[in-house]
Amino acid sequence: MDASGAYHELLARFREIALISSCSTLLGWDEETYMPPGGIEHRAQQIALLAGLRHQRLADPSLADLIAHAAELDVDAGSAIAANVREAKRLHHRHSRVPRSLIEEIAEITTMAQHAWATARSSQSSEQLLPWLDKILALKRSEAQSIGHEGEAYDVVLDEFEPGATTVQIAALLSSLARDVRPLLERILASKRPVPKEILRGSFPIAEQRSLALEAATAIGFDFSDGRLDTSPHPFSASIGPGDCRLTTRFIPDNFSEGFFCTLHEVGHGLYDQGIDKDAWAAPGSDSPSLGLHESQARLWENFVARSLGFWEHFFPRARSVFTPTLDRVSLEAFHGAVNHVALSPLRVRADMVTYDLHILVRFELERALFRGELDVSDLPGAWDAKYEEHLGLRAKSPRDGLLQDGHWAAGMFGYFPTYTLGNLVAAQLYRAAKREMGDLEADFAVGDFRPMLLWLRENVHRIGHRPVTEVVQGATGAPPSHHAFVEELTARLSPIYEL
Amino acid sequence: MDASGAYHELLARFREIALISSCSTLLGWDEETYMPPGGIEHRAQQIALLAGLRHQRLADPSLADLIAHAAELDVDAGSAIAANVREAKRLHHRHSRVPRSLIEEIAEITTMAQHAWATARSSQSSEQLLPWLDKILALKRSEAQSIGHEGEAYDVVLDEFEPGATTVQIAALLSSLARDVRPLLERILASKRPVPKEILRGSFPIAEQRSLALEAATAIGFDFSDGRLDTSPHPFSASIGPGDCRLTTRFIPDNFSEGFFCTLHEVGHGLYDQGIDKDAWAAPGSDSPSLGLHESQARLWENFVARSLGFWEHFFPRARSVFTPTLDRVSLEAFHGAVNHVALSPLRVRADMVTYDLHILVRFELERALFRGELDVSDLPGAWDAKYEEHLGLRAKSPRDGLLQDGHWAAGMFGYFPTYTLGNLVAAQLYRAAKREMGDLEADFAVGDFRPMLLWLRENVHRIGHRPVTEVVQGATGAPPSHHAFVEELTARLSPIYEL
Repeated sequence: MDASGAYHELLARFREIALISSCSTLLGWDEETYMPPGGIEHRAQQIALLAGLRHQRLADPSLADLIAHAAELDVDAGSAIAANVREAKRLHHRHSRVPRSLIEEIAEITTMAQHAWATARSSQSSEQLLPWLDKILALKRSEAQSIGHEGEAYDVVLDEFEPGATTVQIAALLSSLARDVRPLLERILASKRPVPKEILRGSFPIAEQRSLALEAATAIGFDFSDGRLDTSPHPFSASIGPGDCRLTTRFIPDNFSEGFFCTLHEVGHGLYDQGIDKDAWAAPGSDSPSLGLHESQARLWENFVARSLGFWEHFFPRARSVFTPTLDRVSLEAFHGAVNHVALSPLRVRADMVTYDLHILVRFELERALFRGELDVSDLPGAWDAKYEEHLGLRAKSPRDGLLQDGHWAAGMFGYFPTYTLGNLVAAQLYRAAKREMGDLEADFAVGDFRPMLLWLRENVHRIGHRPVTEVVQGATGAPPSHHAFVEELTARLSPIYEL
Repeated sequence: MDASGAYHELLARFREIALISSCSTLLGWDEETYMPPGGIEHRAQQIALLAGLRHQRLADPSLADLIAHAAELDVDAGSAIAANVREAKRLHHRHSRVPRSLIEEIAEITTMAQHAWATARSSQSSEQLLPWLDKILALKRSEAQSIGHEGEAYDVVLDEFEPGATTVQIAALLSSLARDVRPLLERILASKRPVPKEILRGSFPIAEQRSLALEAATAIGFDFSDGRLDTSPHPFSASIGPGDCRLTTRFIPDNFSEGFFCTLHEVGHGLYDQGIDKDAWAAPGSDSPSLGLHESQARLWENFVARSLGFWEHFFPRARSVFTPTLDRVSLEAFHGAVNHVALSPLRVRADMVTYDLHILVRFELERALFRGELDVSDLPGAWDAKYEEHLGLRAKSPRDGLLQDGHWAAGMFGYFPTYTLGNLVAAQLYRAAKREMGDLEADFAVGDFRPMLLWLRENVHRIGHRPVTEVVQGATGAPPSHHAFVEELTARLSPIYEL
């Protein structure tokens, strides 16, 4: 078989792999949205089988030959072909070293554990969750061991979500960010300017929240003929395949921000998925190259677009007409301040832009210690509290607001949290680059025009294809990912609000 | 490998096959309930892949050896082991003779065609549908040819849904039924007793319909922690796996019967699925042995329980309190008459118990002619009208109420319709046998007690396992399936209503 034949056979193999993954994605979506409680054990078995079938294909020894042959094609390193071969190689490498039984066991136990986590959460019992985490950590460490690493084991789990990132880089990024964000936070906390958040509490009927959120999602460009929005206890986005992008959100009747910004966040993910070339679907390098880059799209729309003054110049009159009388006496300025309110809290998902990454720092340090064997799962509740004291100077009042707030570890997603911070940083960098190129984006938002922003992202991110995230960011912004733009943008936005 | 080892390996293979099928069932459920329109092409590819993976395992030549070895086990013909080996053999036989590409093509095209059918239906154009049907018929005939048959090709598609049934038997059953039902129908149509149906039209808000239907579903024994009820344009039931039984229905705001009886029908299917031994799930012979038997459970609850006077003695006061003022001036007797109203109409799904099987006769004769090559798909619209004239003495006013009313053929489900009639007949036979054994069931219904009925079905049908349907019916009722009990039960029920 020649190089071109090998490449086409490789794509055919990956088409089947992608279809299997996409079935699994739908099963996961259903599990969180509509599955009846009694279905969980069976669902775990379905997901484990699909994980096994996918693994079998990715680990197939003949794949190595196809990859080696296809790599002989004389193509540019920046081409889609090169990206497909590179990503195929990475996936084959990860899978060929791990036995199928381990992959299936991880899939099955993490599906069950997500429900155990929900139960532990509602009964406020960390003790119920710890044995699951202990088992999952052991399996994930064993997987990392099988795959092998040059640096530390945590590199391997990081690579699952953020290919190429290393523990050392992430540690450096998080600590510089914490160092530079802290002075801003202190100035804000010391500010005498009242920025009341309470105006976002009150009567916000869910039907109206939903209708406003759908209106905003449509306005910024989400195509509902190729997607949908449901509710689930823990919102997420799931791309089932071309033409089928699923988002979930959650609405709380007495809290405006949670449902609205959560929706815009997921819509940001959805706009990326809907912007990726449909025809390339299934090729190994057709998807986003990293979760951090994916997250940047969610954060950009949620935080830099939807919390901007321009955005609310357009949407606030609409919100006020929908939520009358709750917003009758609220001014645009007060509303804009409230949605940008900064405060220390024990909850990651309700954290503002300034304090958010301190929550990530806590989780990263704990995960890293767990993978190094420096921390036992049984000591996690105490270690959690100690890290919150250290980085945020506070302590959760209940396990529900502490260790039990996140389901990632029960889902086996160690190494995932840092992608949130990368997303924040890259979002700011992209947003500032877009402003440099196109001028006053908020003036567009103020008249309800989000196309320039979306088209810029389509061109500079969505359609770029599978290059390392550093290359994508460098290409779009002229600089590699760093925390500078993020701190600058936050300072610029919050200074007028808090009169810094 | 000894016989016992072969049998256990056989079960392990079928566990994987059943898990693959159950993923496909969920994809199908999602397609009809929540999938966005843009997802259809991708969905067709997902379903085709799973059909191919399932086929590959069922056609595997090594399966024949396992089956042959396992058949050496010295077990009773009525045992679960014998049933598993028998069903494994039937499935392997069907699949080993058909190429995977044909299975995948059928799966893909029928998924696409169901949506083409919906479009053709809303634009009232048979012409749009015919090319799809032509292609699908050709594929299904080719599949039947590959599998081979002693009698006629239609036997093969019949066997897919009703194992062991033959075209000749079905033809005989349908014509005796039509012969014996017609005199009853004529007496009803000649009756001077007014049985007004219009009282079931009026204002029946959907939220209240849904709440009453859920109440009835729960009362007759459906377990919502192991299942759910959604809405879809074309209601169905889908058993995803143990603990996960999905039903759909449709509610129409100005029509009480459609939504209520449709729900009870699907709940009947659901009660069967929830009654099958969970631990046996995945074994080839763990499922219902025939769709006719499955349908009998739906028909029994929909028609013989939920249209009985006893049922409404319990539920009518509740219905009247929910649908006030619509039902304020309606008597129980009038309501009971209305839900048993008999009239000729061009629509199968709205047909009453007396005329329903005439619609099946039409479809059976057309399908058989198509498979014999005596009828071209292009002549189907004319042939449809002619058959309706012949058997029901009427003609649909529009394609939507004619050929386009059913999606079965677009879904590739030739040979499916006769299972509806079998379901009707077996339902009546079971219901009358239960009454013989337990006395006045309607007296139980009148006090809201449906447990005796359900427990009798659990014992005599749901837990019987995978025996030929004739054996199951013989065991439960003392006679093989026939149309006699059906005609007797209808005559007994309708005589007082129509004063025959």
